[in-house]
Amino acid sequence: MHRERYNPEALLPSWLRELSAEKCGALPSDEERMKLAIELARQNVLHGTGGPFGAAVFDRSTGVPVAFGVNRVVGSNCSHAHAEMVALAIAEQRLSSYTLNRPGFPRYELVTSSEPCAMCFGAIIWSGVSRLVCGARTADAEDAGFDEGAKPQEWIAELEKRGIEVVTDLCRSEACEVLKLYLDRRGIVYNGRAT
Amino acid sequence: MHRERYNPEALLPSWLRELSAEKCGALPSDEERMKLAIELARQNVLHGTGGPFGAAVFDRSTGVPVAFGVNRVVGSNCSHAHAEMVALAIAEQRLSSYTLNRPGFPRYELVTSSEPCAMCFGAIIWSGVSRLVCGARTADAEDAGFDEGAKPQEWIAELEKRGIEVVTDLCRSEACEVLKLYLDRRGIVYNGRAT
Repeated sequence: MHRERYNPEALLPSWLRELSAEKCGALPSDEERMKLAIELARQNVLHGTGGPFGAAVFDRSTGVPVAFGVNRVVGSNCSHAHAEMVALAIAEQRLSSYTLNRPGFPRYELVTSSEPCAMCFGAIIWSGVSRLVCGARTADAEDAGFDEGAKPQEWIAELEKRGIEVVTDLCRSEACEVLKLYLDRRGIVYNGRAT
Repeated sequence: MHRERYNPEALLPSWLRELSAEKCGALPSDEERMKLAIELARQNVLHGTGGPFGAAVFDRSTGVPVAFGVNRVVGSNCSHAHAEMVALAIAEQRLSSYTLNRPGFPRYELVTSSEPCAMCFGAIIWSGVSRLVCGARTADAEDAGFDEGAKPQEWIAELEKRGIEVVTDLCRSEACEVLKLYLDRRGIVYNGRAT
């Protein structure tokens, strides 16, 4: 029997499948990497392909991106297709590894336009990234109407305890602009309920 | 361009793809549903296809299963392919909905052989299930060597606050036997690190 391969890349909208991580080239600074994640979020809103969230996995030292992700919950009928989950799943498939923390691998980081929700917080631990860089705050996403679930109050300390460095508030105002753009366009704010 | 469809069913191992939820028939009681989830976990260990965790999504009132899931992290190169995530993703694809809580839908529940980890806790909120039934405790999985992440201390109350009924300790000892079976067989205990 032909065994179909798991294909998280199919979660990506067409416009993003064409923009391959390989073609993007190295982005040396944190700020450039964050601006890319925010641009993915913005394009996702402008194309009407999902929520105002973008993320990317990078080789920490070279700044070469491995995988991109955007929120695809509604378009893919997948409640866990948050930008972070999509980027991590694609990175793992491309590297043929269930963890990005493997001897012989470079160290990887996740850059996300908004702080992770309760689910993505857990997923980041399992992914093996060694660094997390965030744009908008949890409270900013909540102000835009998104329930972020219930993270442990000390979620940053919980990540750091597990060897994951955390940077917050990078380009926060640009990231918030995309949340606002989504609201202005009356995007669906889903919270485990159909609207 | 041909648009490939997202296929979470490809996460299932061959032996489970052959055991379709439709053929299984209705399971009226909580106990029968839990025994099925535990049996999925046990078969996953016996087949060597993943960690000692099984889960299923059921129509609450009829007891008809909609989707099955087992832990497929290592075999699928996907750190978030926990049993609960796999079952929920497949249920959503089958029902063509990003939430299982939709007007006109029956109410759905997730039955899992072990209490959810930090990630799955968040994912349960987003999935739209209205009930969660658990076998082994978080502490049991931790005793078997699995890091369960950091859930909020009051994780059950957080689910209940969001309208999700929670049942714990159902067939706990049978569920723990499968955790023990995995250890006896020296299964991989991964924690975001390659071993």
